[in-house]
Amino acid sequence: MKLIQDEIKPDILIRIASVQKYMKEEGMDALLVASNANIYYTASRFFRGYIYIPSSGSPVWFVIKPVGYEPEEDVVYIRKPENIPSLLTQLSLPAPSKVGYEFDSLLYSDVVRLKALFPDADAVNGSKALKRARMIKTPWELQRMKEDGIHQADAYRQVTRCYRENMTDLEFQIEIERILRLEGNLGFIRTSGNLMEINMGSVIAGDNADVPSPYDFTMGGAGVDPSLPGGANGKRICQGETVMVDMSGSFNGYQTDMTRVWRLGEISGLALKAHECSRSILRKCEEIGKPGLPVASLYDLAVGIAADEGFDKYFMGHRQQAPFIGHGIGIELNELPVVTSRSKDILEEGMTIALEPKFVIPGVGAVGVENTYVVTPDGLKAITVFPEEIQAL
Amino acid sequence: MKLIQDEIKPDILIRIASVQKYMKEEGMDALLVASNANIYYTASRFFRGYIYIPSSGSPVWFVIKPVGYEPEEDVVYIRKPENIPSLLTQLSLPAPSKVGYEFDSLLYSDVVRLKALFPDADAVNGSKALKRARMIKTPWELQRMKEDGIHQADAYRQVTRCYRENMTDLEFQIEIERILRLEGNLGFIRTSGNLMEINMGSVIAGDNADVPSPYDFTMGGAGVDPSLPGGANGKRICQGETVMVDMSGSFNGYQTDMTRVWRLGEISGLALKAHECSRSILRKCEEIGKPGLPVASLYDLAVGIAADEGFDKYFMGHRQQAPFIGHGIGIELNELPVVTSRSKDILEEGMTIALEPKFVIPGVGAVGVENTYVVTPDGLKAITVFPEEIQAL
Repeated sequence: MKLIQDEIKPDILIRIASVQKYMKEEGMDALLVASNANIYYTASRFFRGYIYIPSSGSPVWFVIKPVGYEPEEDVVYIRKPENIPSLLTQLSLPAPSKVGYEFDSLLYSDVVRLKALFPDADAVNGSKALKRARMIKTPWELQRMKEDGIHQADAYRQVTRCYRENMTDLEFQIEIERILRLEGNLGFIRTSGNLMEINMGSVIAGDNADVPSPYDFTMGGAGVDPSLPGGANGKRICQGETVMVDMSGSFNGYQTDMTRVWRLGEISGLALKAHECSRSILRKCEEIGKPGLPVASLYDLAVGIAADEGFDKYFMGHRQQAPFIGHGIGIELNELPVVTSRSKDILEEGMTIALEPKFVIPGVGAVGVENTYVVTPDGLKAITVFPEEIQAL
Repeated sequence: MKLIQDEIKPDILIRIASVQKYMKEEGMDALLVASNANIYYTASRFFRGYIYIPSSGSPVWFVIKPVGYEPEEDVVYIRKPENIPSLLTQLSLPAPSKVGYEFDSLLYSDVVRLKALFPDADAVNGSKALKRARMIKTPWELQRMKEDGIHQADAYRQVTRCYRENMTDLEFQIEIERILRLEGNLGFIRTSGNLMEINMGSVIAGDNADVPSPYDFTMGGAGVDPSLPGGANGKRICQGETVMVDMSGSFNGYQTDMTRVWRLGEISGLALKAHECSRSILRKCEEIGKPGLPVASLYDLAVGIAADEGFDKYFMGHRQQAPFIGHGIGIELNELPVVTSRSKDILEEGMTIALEPKFVIPGVGAVGVENTYVVTPDGLKAITVFPEEIQAL
């Protein structure tokens, strides 16, 4: 078996060329990739090893494990990273003078070890070039994400049926997890950094939505154990409460992010109105979200609409408010751009972002909609297509 | 609410004292803790922030998120880590001259940022002191792990009932996941490093057990997607095959690790005999595994027994063999000690290790047993108590 499938290779070379463009902007003549997410990005498969990307020409994939791939000119088995420099010489690649390493996604010890491979070269942060390349999805990547959106919607269509009377939020979540898994969900969410620990997602009911969390998700929740303080808290879902379902869309190496709201019985007019406000924000973002727009404008627009309608104190949380309304998404749940007032990024065609203007209404719960979008010349196009209205349990 | 619960604080102080003992051995006068697992270890709760441990005296817990904990003398809210040095001065703590940072569990960028807080101090690797302390569990920690073992056994008792005719390995796994979750499993496995990506565990049937994986688990499996190449591959379970169930024991901030084997129809005598060999290895390890024994002796013993019985070519894999038969376990799935021939560790009372001597028999699948043990003066005591015989589906 080949490490890189023939039919995916042209798409991978587009990704490599994009990384190389950003490498050149930063004056790197080589980048050594080692993090799981970036190995997947540059191989469309996870293996244990390294990818050496020169600033021009073909990369070399160095494999430690698993055994069994066909050796090829650009696929070389190694025992440890220290084997890399002499193999590069054998492959007639010049010694690099400025090497990028993934400062933002490798452990300190790992970077120190890798830096020692090229002691005469300047060591710089290669994470930015990779993040910028990954921000714009290739055709193959977009196709995977569209498939995720379809699977996620197929699973969400079965959510109402997962509910049985007197269920807790956690019991409800467990049945949704099962439906997602049967639909092909991998049951694992790749995230960046250490502030996004999560199981298969978040189901929060009633005032649990107003419990602040240490994690960098938009919504909180107490969780059921202090070791994983987020999401469902195991309390029964009550009449007059909303249940916000924000569960995993990871059905392949990519993922979509989609939130919908269910309710038990009738909920307050305030909550209904806030939910419609979220939808208005999304409609407006979809319209103006064309290539060239500063990402910060999406945030400012959302905050403005929420304030105009008098919902500012419920926006993105109540006791603790999140300072962003969305995020890039792809191989990892939290990619660039971050949709915040401080963003310096500009929308580009092929970016994929999840927008999630949400409100926490005390005594009721969380409301609002999240969709994953592709940036197109006509604005934001949702790939999470599913009714947005609050549905009854 | 207090950040540190009164009833857990005495136990946490035992942990801190243990870390301080190892800090002193390495000449550190302060250690700045920031990784999720070690925050949990030193607070019995996850929060976003930092814990500053001087080499003697009480630590200071610096909290960024969530809002809402009672401020106390040793619990201080900060906005960012750069606030820490001046607050230490206010608390009359001396400026440190040799500071430990978690080189082995923080991102490169994060360590660089933290090192800048104490520019005049030597920066050293604090990971080892934390790992050594965490190797020996406190009474409170052992109690949590015993609870995990009970919950995991309660769930495994329902595994046979999860099977329906013509199921795939993945469908079988999904039903086991649901049972585990209903039993209180958190649905999230904390691991150390980047070579242990997994959903809720591994269910491998037949020859899928012989597919090499890039991950550092003992067993392989193709997985259902090249982005997560391990475990179940989605093929139907066939007559004459084994199904190895190695699913999550994470029911609180700690976890147990337990593997049992099921079979569909009759399996070969070779497989049955190899399974009994695994049990013999465990019995012998339980007997000799007393404080003072070099960890490597457990490995050597296992390899010796497997070879004596002629099973060496199936031991710990067949096409690709794992070089270890067990691992420390606790907050993270993979802790110290690693049970390998190269281990320099010595068994100590209160260590918790998972031992998993396994065999992959071509044409049949994986066999063998895994238990989680506590090291006691009388040898290894299993906390995953569940019948070890191969059970029929």
